[in-house]
Amino acid sequence: MQEGALLVSSMVKHAKDVHSNSQIITIEENGPHIVTFGEAIERAEKFAAALSRLGIEKGDRIATFMWNNQRHFEAYVAVPSMGAVLHTLNVRLFPEQLAYTINHAEDKIIIVDDVLAPLLAKVLDQLTTVKTIIVAGSGDASILGETLRYEDLIEAEQAGFEWPELDERVGASMCYTSGTTGNPKGVVYSQRSIFLHSMAVTSGSSVACEERDRILVIVPMFHVNAWGLPFAALLSGASLVMPQMYLKGEQLVHIVAEHKVTLAGAVPTILNDFVNYANQSDADLSSLRFVLGGGSAVPIALSDAFEARVGIPITQGWGMTEVSPLGAIGLVPAGASKEEARHYRSMAGRVSPGVEMRVVGGDGTVLPNDGESVGEFEVRGPWVTASYYRDPDPDKFHDGWLRTGDVGTLDPLGYMRITDRTKDVIKSGGEWISSVQLENEVMAHPGVYEAAVIAVPDDRWQERPLVAIVRAPDSKVTAQELFDFLTPRVAKWWLPERWCFVDAIPKTSVGKFDKKVLRAHYGDGQLDVETVSDSSRS
Amino acid sequence: MQEGALLVSSMVKHAKDVHSNSQIITIEENGPHIVTFGEAIERAEKFAAALSRLGIEKGDRIATFMWNNQRHFEAYVAVPSMGAVLHTLNVRLFPEQLAYTINHAEDKIIIVDDVLAPLLAKVLDQLTTVKTIIVAGSGDASILGETLRYEDLIEAEQAGFEWPELDERVGASMCYTSGTTGNPKGVVYSQRSIFLHSMAVTSGSSVACEERDRILVIVPMFHVNAWGLPFAALLSGASLVMPQMYLKGEQLVHIVAEHKVTLAGAVPTILNDFVNYANQSDADLSSLRFVLGGGSAVPIALSDAFEARVGIPITQGWGMTEVSPLGAIGLVPAGASKEEARHYRSMAGRVSPGVEMRVVGGDGTVLPNDGESVGEFEVRGPWVTASYYRDPDPDKFHDGWLRTGDVGTLDPLGYMRITDRTKDVIKSGGEWISSVQLENEVMAHPGVYEAAVIAVPDDRWQERPLVAIVRAPDSKVTAQELFDFLTPRVAKWWLPERWCFVDAIPKTSVGKFDKKVLRAHYGDGQLDVETVSDSSRS
Repeated sequence: MQEGALLVSSMVKHAKDVHSNSQIITIEENGPHIVTFGEAIERAEKFAAALSRLGIEKGDRIATFMWNNQRHFEAYVAVPSMGAVLHTLNVRLFPEQLAYTINHAEDKIIIVDDVLAPLLAKVLDQLTTVKTIIVAGSGDASILGETLRYEDLIEAEQAGFEWPELDERVGASMCYTSGTTGNPKGVVYSQRSIFLHSMAVTSGSSVACEERDRILVIVPMFHVNAWGLPFAALLSGASLVMPQMYLKGEQLVHIVAEHKVTLAGAVPTILNDFVNYANQSDADLSSLRFVLGGGSAVPIALSDAFEARVGIPITQGWGMTEVSPLGAIGLVPAGASKEEARHYRSMAGRVSPGVEMRVVGGDGTVLPNDGESVGEFEVRGPWVTASYYRDPDPDKFHDGWLRTGDVGTLDPLGYMRITDRTKDVIKSGGEWISSVQLENEVMAHPGVYEAAVIAVPDDRWQERPLVAIVRAPDSKVTAQELFDFLTPRVAKWWLPERWCFVDAIPKTSVGKFDKKVLRAHYGDGQLDVETVSDSSRS
Repeated sequence: MQEGALLVSSMVKHAKDVHSNSQIITIEENGPHIVTFGEAIERAEKFAAALSRLGIEKGDRIATFMWNNQRHFEAYVAVPSMGAVLHTLNVRLFPEQLAYTINHAEDKIIIVDDVLAPLLAKVLDQLTTVKTIIVAGSGDASILGETLRYEDLIEAEQAGFEWPELDERVGASMCYTSGTTGNPKGVVYSQRSIFLHSMAVTSGSSVACEERDRILVIVPMFHVNAWGLPFAALLSGASLVMPQMYLKGEQLVHIVAEHKVTLAGAVPTILNDFVNYANQSDADLSSLRFVLGGGSAVPIALSDAFEARVGIPITQGWGMTEVSPLGAIGLVPAGASKEEARHYRSMAGRVSPGVEMRVVGGDGTVLPNDGESVGEFEVRGPWVTASYYRDPDPDKFHDGWLRTGDVGTLDPLGYMRITDRTKDVIKSGGEWISSVQLENEVMAHPGVYEAAVIAVPDDRWQERPLVAIVRAPDSKVTAQELFDFLTPRVAKWWLPERWCFVDAIPKTSVGKFDKKVLRAHYGDGQLDVETVSDSSRS
């Protein structure tokens, strides 16, 4: 067989030769700005020529600090195709993290949307490697000092830049995870991994996008390549609708209706805003044929609300920055009844072709895919990262597998149910107790307003659960009552001995339980823990 | 990124972990025989163990001489996954060609369907490398002498054979082209190329097969891996319906109706039989969602007849043994009107993602994709072969491109129109004259029953066209009259000086003009050629 290197430029050439009429529609204040793939790719060729003239060579990192728009797409085309590495900066990072990622990646150039200039300006004096800032758009960016203008660069060049032949294993783009602890960690996507991930996205086991699709790219292009959708569009010819910062439910509903969007993916909070606004509007949303929800679990009630208003449910997907991100997508199995379909739709997803997944117990044993054995999900495959960029984390990567940090079950048809995060699961005597399941069971008691479960050290069992309870108004429920309430509901060895009552569970900025803080409170002795003795454990 | 080798065994593991409920339905004399993917893969694991016990090692060639059925599918799974090479023998080859391919590939084992034993017996005494014959089925095969039985081998083994880790560049399967001249030429598909081709087949720009599909595998599994459909089924979980030798229109219509087939691909003659029978039957064919036609051009009338009876037109595909085979598939572009759709559907196909195609003129210049410039199609990509097996053909492969032998145009949206074969085109003074187009123009004259055009040597122009005419009954049309008839219809330099009248055009066994024979007749002086002088050429 021919070498046939799997490159981003192969996808770009394909898009130019076959799908030059497809469109990129950028939502702007005064209406949509539309170009064809043919036009955008010619502009990307000119931009690559300009970068080359600025001294950019293979392997150099070029950062973007941009919303989802046409010029960002052009950078997606130009930078990897010329053999440089596209580093998409998260515009929502704290300044110190932002500066860290730019310096750690050793970015030489940053391309910034004019409207984002003030945000970038905050870190300007901390940057150690950036030589040039290129401003996209004609708005004021004087706050950044001396800059070049994207449109000036393009205007000075000719189309027809010759994409170099590359080894398919070299880096093409990179993205930093915004972990909750420590510095962000970089994941470098190779030419090969982007090509293969794009093929997977276009497959019938995924969203099967093709030229008739019009994809609304809600997920930021600085977040795992917008779930890979812009690259998949190059392969499939699907048109792209780029909403920039217009991400409110009302705005998205109008965009879908006006541009006859067929396919969209977003996190549940955005989908929730979307359907809430849609329910107050008579916008025609019938063009939508596929809506993907990911990033966190999609409540079945949200999917039901979507189906009631839009005519299709939400399909859940599971992924990670380290998995490019697609790992699983919750298409319903062939022949499923309506009831079964709903069951499968409540799962995190079904393992995608190209990805291998297994569930591993606390002692390192590979567990059966029986839908019952609980362990940590591990994945491997050609678009799973093998290490962080210049930041080894040997505990995360082992024997060719990536530890996902997600805990749950895998069933015989490849459906994942996520029950916990490894950092939250309670490792008791070699077995695992799900903090999330315990919380759900405790919260079923009418006297409980909120409950959070964390692991605390235990001499005998290594770890045992501690339950922090916020009582419902007027409730006087006791730990012993809750223990008795739980007894018929969970395995005997799950029953928590340690309980405490608090005024509020600490929360993160996005409203999730902040168990890190709760654990710290426990460590500091701030929690008033009482013990319920269990006569059967002795 | 992880290594993530692209292997057939990855697809097999995926099918086992995710699509174990999908089915393989083999049509047998007494009704369908149905197994699940899970069962078939377990049997394949046992078969691999048996082959291993018989001494088969990585790289050894294992041949199949089988119809499309479950055991053939099991061989597709077992042989490449264990690192051996599956050589699918064409049961329709002449005995001398069959013996040649077996000996040339150095097959060690042949697996043969019991019903095909008599055919294989004809070449038995010519085989130089085969050590063992394994008979699939319990029918009499004594004509083959000492053999092993497939079911006995499986019964003796345990499931759970551990597929080895392999380099993705090693051979996985092979197939010989049945060229019209010289010995058949072998094409070896690598593990990587099969994986990538399968992903391409499952994409939205191709047939987008997925678990809900039920694919009727009409194309023989000994013909370019049945267009790659069995492998694509492993990735996508589509069920497979295997018709064995039951390939008549009536049989296929009943199979589609009974098994709710959603997807099928076949050559036009079979599709023609299918629709002819369907038109006399009230069978419910509404399950069909996609019908692919390939192997030769699909007449638009056939596609229309299909649409009228079945509700969907035929989508044309273009491929070659050397291209795995998928190169182009004629999906209609987004936004096409009904009229435009029909135009695009008359084309040979639209270039598939992963395949790069160009049109090259007689002088080696790359021609523009303008839908008008006529040249030879050349392709490259990760599932295009780089050479024949132990049979170099440097003229066919050059600078990383494969010369396809097909001549035509490529339009700005990647649609191919095939006008000729290179061996039939007339290379006149550095420009190309299409024999097919000339024939069509001449046959438009009412006095002509049939016309065939071949190239003959010319001192001045290298080659010029010779037109062989079969007059219509009672017609007395002359060469000069036909020349005058052509004059306003083709470019002046296309006008043929040489004409001859014959009783019949020689034909191949499938009814095509046999231009090889016609050229030989010309060479032997058997044709009575008259010359029409063209005063404008001097």
